[in-house]
Amino acid sequence: MKPTLTIEYCPRCGWLLRAAWMAQELLTTFADDLHGITLRPSEVAGRYTITLGEADVLWDRKREGGFPEPKTIKQLFRDRIAPTRSLGHSDR
Amino acid sequence: MKPTLTIEYCPRCGWLLRAAWMAQELLTTFADDLHGITLRPSEVAGRYTITLGEADVLWDRKREGGFPEPKTIKQLFRDRIAPTRSLGHSDR
Repeated sequence: MKPTLTIEYCPRCGWLLRAAWMAQELLTTFADDLHGITLRPSEVAGRYTITLGEADVLWDRKREGGFPEPKTIKQLFRDRIAPTRSLGHSDR
Repeated sequence: MKPTLTIEYCPRCGWLLRAAWMAQELLTTFADDLHGITLRPSEVAGRYTITLGEADVLWDRKREGGFPEPKTIKQLFRDRIAPTRSLGHSDR
């Protein structure tokens, strides 16, 4: 079974577009590796988290102190699902 | 528990952008009503389906013979979760 990612975002903060952009970046790079990406409106103000499966939090805006670039999430995801794979210029 | 929607699309057909657009339309209108929307790359060529929960297929490109407008999906979803609610100009 391929893994899923969940991007939980604060809709009242206006982060839907950011979350959808990230989903498209990841689905472009990992179309064959992902079962899917879920966009989830959060009821918690200021939340922006990206979680692999049920509980592996790749990014938490409050923990990390800001938003990630797609490159960072691509590397974190790749490290978990195919650590020897090159991401091309996302590795430079 | 709020419902989920799944948009399954054919990545080789180039339909990621269309699927992500639809997800954003629905998440804008139903931010408070949805648990989330999953974007799922299909392994089946030519697939574009929008499913409520596990099995309520709101739209199937092959069954319907084309792609839906957001307004159509908004009405189908609204009819299921809050049939008396007005969608404003998406009802005209």
